Amino acid sequence: MAKITAVSPLAPAEFPALPVIGGVAFATAAAGVKYQGRTDVMLATLAPGTVIAGAFTRSTTRSAPVLDCQDKLGGPSDGPAAILVNSGNSNAFTGKSGVISVEAITAGVALACDVAQARVFTSSTGVIGEPLPHARITAVLDALAAATDPGGIADAAKAIMTTDTFPKGACAQVDIGGKTVSIAGIAKGSGMIAPDMATMLVYIFTDAQIGQEALQALVSTANELTFNAITVDSDTSTSDSLLVAATGASGVAVDQDETFADALHGVMLDLAHQVVRDGEGATKFVEIRVTGADRDADAKTHAMAIANSPLVKTAIAGEDPNWGRIVMAIGKSGAAADRDRIGIRFGDVEVAKDGWRSESYSEEAAAAHMKGEHIIISVELGLGTGTSTVWTCDLSHGYIAINADYRS
Amino acid sequence: MAKITAVSPLAPAEFPALPVIGGVAFATAAAGVKYQGRTDVMLATLAPGTVIAGAFTRSTTRSAPVLDCQDKLGGPSDGPAAILVNSGNSNAFTGKSGVISVEAITAGVALACDVAQARVFTSSTGVIGEPLPHARITAVLDALAAATDPGGIADAAKAIMTTDTFPKGACAQVDIGGKTVSIAGIAKGSGMIAPDMATMLVYIFTDAQIGQEALQALVSTANELTFNAITVDSDTSTSDSLLVAATGASGVAVDQDETFADALHGVMLDLAHQVVRDGEGATKFVEIRVTGADRDADAKTHAMAIANSPLVKTAIAGEDPNWGRIVMAIGKSGAAADRDRIGIRFGDVEVAKDGWRSESYSEEAAAAHMKGEHIIISVELGLGTGTSTVWTCDLSHGYIAINADYRS
Repeated sequence: MAKITAVSPLAPAEFPALPVIGGVAFATAAAGVKYQGRTDVMLATLAPGTVIAGAFTRSTTRSAPVLDCQDKLGGPSDGPAAILVNSGNSNAFTGKSGVISVEAITAGVALACDVAQARVFTSSTGVIGEPLPHARITAVLDALAAATDPGGIADAAKAIMTTDTFPKGACAQVDIGGKTVSIAGIAKGSGMIAPDMATMLVYIFTDAQIGQEALQALVSTANELTFNAITVDSDTSTSDSLLVAATGASGVAVDQDETFADALHGVMLDLAHQVVRDGEGATKFVEIRVTGADRDADAKTHAMAIANSPLVKTAIAGEDPNWGRIVMAIGKSGAAADRDRIGIRFGDVEVAKDGWRSESYSEEAAAAHMKGEHIIISVELGLGTGTSTVWTCDLSHGYIAINADYRS
Repeated sequence: MAKITAVSPLAPAEFPALPVIGGVAFATAAAGVKYQGRTDVMLATLAPGTVIAGAFTRSTTRSAPVLDCQDKLGGPSDGPAAILVNSGNSNAFTGKSGVISVEAITAGVALACDVAQARVFTSSTGVIGEPLPHARITAVLDALAAATDPGGIADAAKAIMTTDTFPKGACAQVDIGGKTVSIAGIAKGSGMIAPDMATMLVYIFTDAQIGQEALQALVSTANELTFNAITVDSDTSTSDSLLVAATGASGVAVDQDETFADALHGVMLDLAHQVVRDGEGATKFVEIRVTGADRDADAKTHAMAIANSPLVKTAIAGEDPNWGRIVMAIGKSGAAADRDRIGIRFGDVEVAKDGWRSESYSEEAAAAHMKGEHIIISVELGLGTGTSTVWTCDLSHGYIAINADYRS
């Protein structure tokens, strides 16, 4: 495997100081699932009554742990709960053996942590199609259960990494009715997972008090605008999982609270952006804003067509203000567009207007914007009020090096 | 612009000897539209009564010449006809000026060749968003009209190249009722077009006698299985155009003739494969065969998801039998699949069966297949009788070098 050890040039300066969330504790272990000399299992225990919502890959070939999580979501939430995650093996495309591994792990966590098995959620990320050596994981469960620490979230963020180049964390604290509600989340994703595809895993914890349906609704809405609005290479993992756990420890009810909804959205967006910033080979953080579509869904179709176009992404890597490729991507997206109404901006530079190069267009000014690290491409379709913003990274030699210069 | 001058390693040994087609003559000129020191305009004149069918990009931002061709197709076919193609400028996203250029060119050809303007078809390929300097083209029309040569098809194939690394030609001659019917075609495509996307242009000529509706039906059917079954990078040009002209000079009626339909399909497939073989940075010719889908359309959705996946394409570039990425691409395609019935082969090597790695799987044997130049990936879905085969190339450093290592 190609050794790509450098940290992404788009990485944040440091891992943030995340607040302790009442009712949540973490432990990590080096189980040797695949990696040697590093932690690869993380346990999060959740206080009785913790409400859990989630979102998962839509892949038809999704993994056994994803199917198990989806089955359990929305079940009773009275007792304690737990989340167990391993890196190094995704337990995907493993047939019956995959189901057996999920059973063994969730039963083991239930026993070690005194939690109902229906309240144990698990995720796996790493190689596809290899049976998960789950006995290596169940062997460390008692030690994990004995070592849980409310302050262990930074270590947890490291244990779930595969070939991410940096651990990802984000938080928010909001004042609601004079009390503080905290949200802390971790994510992994978009680094290479040798020898398979990148997987995005996200775990967010809050001490807010909220019903399961209300939390699920918040998560589903924000998910469309955050994790479902990013793309590195258009390839969808079999294992993408997002879990949000609300312990209620703050005693603050947030079912109808917009401040909380905004704060949760903000944490999700921050983590989603960090995933893009760790995109394979990324040298540019790219924001695509589409306005003036007939519907929001059309705007997102156009935005994703631009964000996933190899020709657009290579032009960005080359710092080339190649707006013809934006026109091409709009044209191929399948959503409605009127060629003669399209306007395009790179940053503040008007590139095209009403279907042709803008009279004020300055190639120099556009090229200057492309040299930056944060590229903003705005498209106005001139049809209606539908909008969408998505985020991606460029397609560079680094992506090829990570994904092609590999021999099994 | 990056100088990628080497001929694709997947190029045929030589340009084929194409038969002269009765009723067709060619001329080329160096009009200096953009390129210097080479031909960039080609004229094909077509005998009275020549029937013309075609297929075009579905892009909503398609170019003025494409819209003009689409308007004219299916019109009266009694008089002579002509096709004029320029390289160097695509006349796409050029607003009203684009329409004016098409008018000027088609009116000029009509005058120079004594053809009704409604029977003049034109295509442009090259830079997007720059007004086409059509006066450089109309200035050479008289010289072109005076120089047409029935044997000029090889020169025509060169004049329509942009940064293709080799000219593309294919032909067939079939015996129908004791007489010979000939088909000869040329294409350009999948080399970079600085500074914009690749465009595919295809012109096929035959001396068969056939009605316009019958020819259009043959072309549309074969197009789905040939030019619409190839992909280099999932990006669709604003200018893709295919024209098929039947002069009738052989005196052989082929409206219901399967031999002719097969021969035309064969020429189209040959040219489509040559476009893939000239794919930007291509080092492998890749065939994706999907069987066992509910419907042919589902099979094609899966096949295209595999063919367009950057992770699959980079794995092929790296000669890595990374079948987990095939599973991923099937899962994300959006078409129906049952994870536990999927079987996968690389060449003759069974990789996966019934949703898991095959018991007989040999990584060595699979890796040996990946070292070849012609990679065959077969997927059996185990659901129904729908099938599809598509062709693509790998995604290598060459693609990035061509598309990113460029400065305007």
